[in-house]
Amino acid sequence: MEKEYLMIPGPTPIPHEISQSMGSSIINHRGPKFKELLEEVTANLKKVYETESEMFVLTASGTGAMEAGIVNFISPGERVLALTNGAFGDRLENIALTYGVEIESVSSEWGSPFDYEEIEEKLANDKSHEIKAILVVHNESSTGLMNDIEKISKLRRGHPALLIVDTISSMGAVHLPVDEWEIDVCLTGSQKALYLPPGLSFISVNSRAMKAMDNCTMGKFYFSLKKAREFSEKGQTPFTPAIPQVMALKDSLNMLLQAGKQYNFERHYRMMKATRSAVEAIGLELFVKDLKHASRTVTAVKKPPEIEVSKLRSLMRGKYGVEIAGGQAKLSQDIFRIGHLGAITEMDVITAISALEMSLLELGYNLQLGTAVSKAQEIVMQK
Amino acid sequence: MEKEYLMIPGPTPIPHEISQSMGSSIINHRGPKFKELLEEVTANLKKVYETESEMFVLTASGTGAMEAGIVNFISPGERVLALTNGAFGDRLENIALTYGVEIESVSSEWGSPFDYEEIEEKLANDKSHEIKAILVVHNESSTGLMNDIEKISKLRRGHPALLIVDTISSMGAVHLPVDEWEIDVCLTGSQKALYLPPGLSFISVNSRAMKAMDNCTMGKFYFSLKKAREFSEKGQTPFTPAIPQVMALKDSLNMLLQAGKQYNFERHYRMMKATRSAVEAIGLELFVKDLKHASRTVTAVKKPPEIEVSKLRSLMRGKYGVEIAGGQAKLSQDIFRIGHLGAITEMDVITAISALEMSLLELGYNLQLGTAVSKAQEIVMQK
Repeated sequence: MEKEYLMIPGPTPIPHEISQSMGSSIINHRGPKFKELLEEVTANLKKVYETESEMFVLTASGTGAMEAGIVNFISPGERVLALTNGAFGDRLENIALTYGVEIESVSSEWGSPFDYEEIEEKLANDKSHEIKAILVVHNESSTGLMNDIEKISKLRRGHPALLIVDTISSMGAVHLPVDEWEIDVCLTGSQKALYLPPGLSFISVNSRAMKAMDNCTMGKFYFSLKKAREFSEKGQTPFTPAIPQVMALKDSLNMLLQAGKQYNFERHYRMMKATRSAVEAIGLELFVKDLKHASRTVTAVKKPPEIEVSKLRSLMRGKYGVEIAGGQAKLSQDIFRIGHLGAITEMDVITAISALEMSLLELGYNLQLGTAVSKAQEIVMQK
Repeated sequence: MEKEYLMIPGPTPIPHEISQSMGSSIINHRGPKFKELLEEVTANLKKVYETESEMFVLTASGTGAMEAGIVNFISPGERVLALTNGAFGDRLENIALTYGVEIESVSSEWGSPFDYEEIEEKLANDKSHEIKAILVVHNESSTGLMNDIEKISKLRRGHPALLIVDTISSMGAVHLPVDEWEIDVCLTGSQKALYLPPGLSFISVNSRAMKAMDNCTMGKFYFSLKKAREFSEKGQTPFTPAIPQVMALKDSLNMLLQAGKQYNFERHYRMMKATRSAVEAIGLELFVKDLKHASRTVTAVKKPPEIEVSKLRSLMRGKYGVEIAGGQAKLSQDIFRIGHLGAITEMDVITAISALEMSLLELGYNLQLGTAVSKAQEIVMQK
């Protein structure tokens, strides 16, 4: 008998209650029951987002919502400011490029915060307002870095560019008030901090973005939010939705809102702190050093020279049932990543740290068992 | 205590075993277990399709696969021959139009078969082979008409146009040998005849279509099958898949293949015959009169003058728990549709016919209770 601990930055494990909702019987997506369901989940999603914007449910993983976040608001040949410091920032930029959008970019090293002054300058220099939107990922799960959306929003004041933010791996886990921060388009996925399996994504569109949407000439069909808006007025989605996930979403949002958003933010903060303190205690190096920029949902750790990431992951998986992630793209051999979000608990973090200690020791890394675990415990105890 | 009978042309009810698979715990979509899972379902999907083509699993409903079936094979400005005689044929054409494809079309009245000679002529007249693809829906669930793909494939011989077929509401329910009929691109959805909830769609691409794909200049990201091919070599999907549906797909395909495809074809044939005989027995008029063109998975029935479709549906749903579909688009007030596919059984058809009889009688339609039911029974008994 082995228990499995899925400790990657999504998809996350799901609570038993949600497993059961996923097995619900199928209903007509054009009938009154589905209408009621869609209206309830939409209203509750708005509570999570803290927004009065329109909210749409897409049957696609997060990347589908990223595509929707671009093709509905930018026309071919228009210019955007793409902020990139990781794999998902690159993905947003690549989607825009694919659809013939002109790119201006502010990049920093993967794992390093943006030069916010450079962003400010780019916007200030754009006197003729050619930049139609800023594309940015809130939480770069590829590196464990969290970008400062509130600051970017403030820098943008006075410039009409839309602020289009990917919060796929952070929404629900961290304070992210969409309206207060004036995020025009905000998208997320189901399989991260919302206790749900993959299969759905969500996108909010405020009235400024709606105007851009009405004028957008980009071709799109499956991801057309105009169609989504038309059908949402009838309590429907334009195309058959992933009904089990929508049913489970009702329960997962109730669970999240009943526990309280603040409770959840604090829980994620402690999971981050516990993970960071633990790995530092055994001499490992954090990929994002400054706590201020650290992701609340995933921690990336530099591998010690004597350890191979793939061997570490295999041992943790095979012997202890703990699945962590490697690095992505150019970082694949350099870091490993521990996800601590959604239905992952503080006790799961302790478990994962314990498996990490045992596996590192077995692979020849010098450590005293319990050193990292006890640091994680110290943080978890504070709750 | 009420039991619900979902008798629409998809989404369909799902067997209890599949409900349970839908609640499976979530696994890493970049790990070895998922690789094994994806390889198994892909191999079994090919058995259902009777094809050696490449097969891709998309996290999107059928319309996403329709979009993938166009944007990966046709470049902007290229010409296609769109065959339309229902809402889904129109949708294929609209997707192509949206993406800047030139349309030549052969249309017939909704519910009427194509003029196959006209198709033959169009292809014969296209000496310079400007038509790059034929877009056609196999089973028009909007009207209950099944188009003759084998015939279209034969007409196409000698012309290099790709044959791109939407089999969303028929694959699994009816003989549809993809390779034998030389279908280059064949797409379907999870929520129709495959015993699964919505959330996934599947698309096969043969070597001829692969060549077109490699030369296609249309912009696409989420629906890029080049990316899907690249990742499928690693046993992965490019973006996080709807894992519960993929897990359930393993079980549903095993269920389908173990029962036997032929068994399933015959079962669907009987459900169609039972439904058609039943409604005719009480003087209702079939929307598609000729059995040869009748859909195996959905039967459309003209409403009697004295009956309103919405009242009939409400009564059947509210009093007997039987959910049937109305018409789509321009047919919404003229027909009702009974779905008989996937996990819907022959006994469910009898149940639905019985609810139809009782509801029609209550709404003032003149009939003798049992007349339609007994006709359905006669067919079902033949198994």
